[in-house]
Amino acid sequence: MSVTAAAGFVASGMHCGIRRKRPDLCVVRSLEPAVGGGMFTRNRVKAAPVLVNQEHLAQAEPQAIVANSGVANAATGERGKLNTLATAAEAARLLELSAEEVLVLSTGVVGVQLPMGTLLPALTTVVDALSPDGGADAAEAIMTTDTRPKEKAIACDGFSVGGMAKGSGMIHPDLATMLAVITTDYPLGPGEPRTLLMPAVNPTFNAITIDGDCSTNDTVLLLANGASGVERTAARDKQFEEALFEVCDGLAREIVADGEGVTVVATITVTGAVDDAQAKAIAQRIAISPLVKTALFGHDPNWGRVLVAAGSAPYEGRYADLDPERVSLSYNGTYVLRNGSPEDVRPDVAGPSCTIDLELGLGPGSASYLTSDLTYDYVRINAEYTT
Amino acid sequence: MSVTAAAGFVASGMHCGIRRKRPDLCVVRSLEPAVGGGMFTRNRVKAAPVLVNQEHLAQAEPQAIVANSGVANAATGERGKLNTLATAAEAARLLELSAEEVLVLSTGVVGVQLPMGTLLPALTTVVDALSPDGGADAAEAIMTTDTRPKEKAIACDGFSVGGMAKGSGMIHPDLATMLAVITTDYPLGPGEPRTLLMPAVNPTFNAITIDGDCSTNDTVLLLANGASGVERTAARDKQFEEALFEVCDGLAREIVADGEGVTVVATITVTGAVDDAQAKAIAQRIAISPLVKTALFGHDPNWGRVLVAAGSAPYEGRYADLDPERVSLSYNGTYVLRNGSPEDVRPDVAGPSCTIDLELGLGPGSASYLTSDLTYDYVRINAEYTT
Repeated sequence: MSVTAAAGFVASGMHCGIRRKRPDLCVVRSLEPAVGGGMFTRNRVKAAPVLVNQEHLAQAEPQAIVANSGVANAATGERGKLNTLATAAEAARLLELSAEEVLVLSTGVVGVQLPMGTLLPALTTVVDALSPDGGADAAEAIMTTDTRPKEKAIACDGFSVGGMAKGSGMIHPDLATMLAVITTDYPLGPGEPRTLLMPAVNPTFNAITIDGDCSTNDTVLLLANGASGVERTAARDKQFEEALFEVCDGLAREIVADGEGVTVVATITVTGAVDDAQAKAIAQRIAISPLVKTALFGHDPNWGRVLVAAGSAPYEGRYADLDPERVSLSYNGTYVLRNGSPEDVRPDVAGPSCTIDLELGLGPGSASYLTSDLTYDYVRINAEYTT
Repeated sequence: MSVTAAAGFVASGMHCGIRRKRPDLCVVRSLEPAVGGGMFTRNRVKAAPVLVNQEHLAQAEPQAIVANSGVANAATGERGKLNTLATAAEAARLLELSAEEVLVLSTGVVGVQLPMGTLLPALTTVVDALSPDGGADAAEAIMTTDTRPKEKAIACDGFSVGGMAKGSGMIHPDLATMLAVITTDYPLGPGEPRTLLMPAVNPTFNAITIDGDCSTNDTVLLLANGASGVERTAARDKQFEEALFEVCDGLAREIVADGEGVTVVATITVTGAVDDAQAKAIAQRIAISPLVKTALFGHDPNWGRVLVAAGSAPYEGRYADLDPERVSLSYNGTYVLRNGSPEDVRPDVAGPSCTIDLELGLGPGSASYLTSDLTYDYVRINAEYTT
């Protein structure tokens, strides 16, 4: 499953003591020389492992990943960075790699230092446990308030793409939020992992950011080791890209569905915008609106809120283009507004999922966002969670 | 008090039947020739009265205002605009003014037409009731889910500035949100009301927008009739500007304190930003963060959430400048982070108000935002409110 679905990848996960009881440390490693790349948070406040990973990726191709939950190692200053470097160095020693070939992922509480006296000795045990069956253990060890592990794997024509992710609601607190590790035994060249990640991540992981935040730790990594032995063809390249998208999409959807307090998942689609960038700005504005999200919780097709949000979507220092007289809006296929005039209907939004389609009539731009409702449980979880 | 605190202004308010029981229609009028100006929502979806008022202000100085609650007259197409024009025309006839001298404010549900058969006949009664004591009645008639009317008046050296506002949480639903009417008997010239409004509104009404929305109806109007008879002096000009700020600030604070489900009011202050615009972008990002707001509800000094929000404040298509190693952060004067390093303290945030100060150490820019907590009651009110 997941990160060990592709040939030549091993993984393991365990409880080492960063968290009280749940698994909190894992390793993923390629047994064949791999190439890799990543996409990282754009937050001005980047966690220590994000900074270190960016340096390592500039120096070497990644062969292994160490990930911990419980502590995000963000807002931890110079000591935090030294702790990440020490983690990579110790894992490299055990795996007979160079430190630059090891990436480190951390997720958990912000502003707390990693307990290195607990973490470093435990690495020996985790490395000893590495196995082709270890994907599920690894996926459990990166969970924070997630209620279930998130894994996805796709078998293609002679090769596989698999991944794991964490994030329970993207809206994590001082839990620095989303991590995803994807592996494949399809043969890619240096630089290709990052190039291929971007088109797969933008409409998936980057289209579920419910509160507009990148956290301090958000990371998506792709490692490719070619261990399937298949030859590259144009058809397989295309199949790989589709599988990569499917894995990203599946993991992103699992993250939303497992969001904090979520009872309704909604797909917001904007079409007819001036261009895709403006469509995305408007879709995002609707997707993060507390008013739209509370209405989803109330199963209320409260379209005025969608319109108000759409009309005030920040885009390059102004609001994105929208002509009220050309706007049409539908819930689950039923129009509530057509060319700016309200329709006298009340669409059925009783179910646990909902589609909201906004047509702007201005141009060819389109975008989709996946969002969730805002519930009592969201407030409870986030008000009670204490530092 | 409020809109009738200044000499030469009369007002009245009553229940006419747009809403089931509560007052829903009012008129404010100057008995002396007045000058006036306004600031309006920048939402791409503007309510019919906003569009009409902008046209009227371009043609004449406003002498009277008609305001209704219950129906926002937004997303109502051409018919909505005709209804606003008819309201202005009928009020003008009764008040012996030209239609262009009358402004119309509407607040309430979006996407519903005004009941003109109810509104127009009632105007005669409201106009008949105009009185120097009618300010309180007018302030009640513009309430929607507000739990109390919002009024503020300041007596200066020989003149007065007074105003009324509505908005219960700026975050109104398909209740198109904030309205404010301010009057003064200080003598101003044509064009001055708008010029003087801007510096008073930006740090007050424009610094409380909790969900980043302008609604479709947001409007602040200032009418000045000179009826105090005082002469203009530099000292009085300054006193007027200060009083105008105080009235805007007082009304804005009342709006936040009366916000939907609010139990905690917080002042977010950002200093040391590159410039004021970036300071405001960061302060706003913190102020609208659901994570910061739920932590306020939990009386939790969860500073990681403030940092995460500050690091991802949209500003001109990127994130506003912030150097994590220079950031200091305090709650109620107690530092939790100093130059990027966490302090081992837990500040007291038990009270109903809280100050959060973020120092960036980058430049002279500063800004403040007033925000509220995100509570169960907010979710209840907005999930249960149905179209």
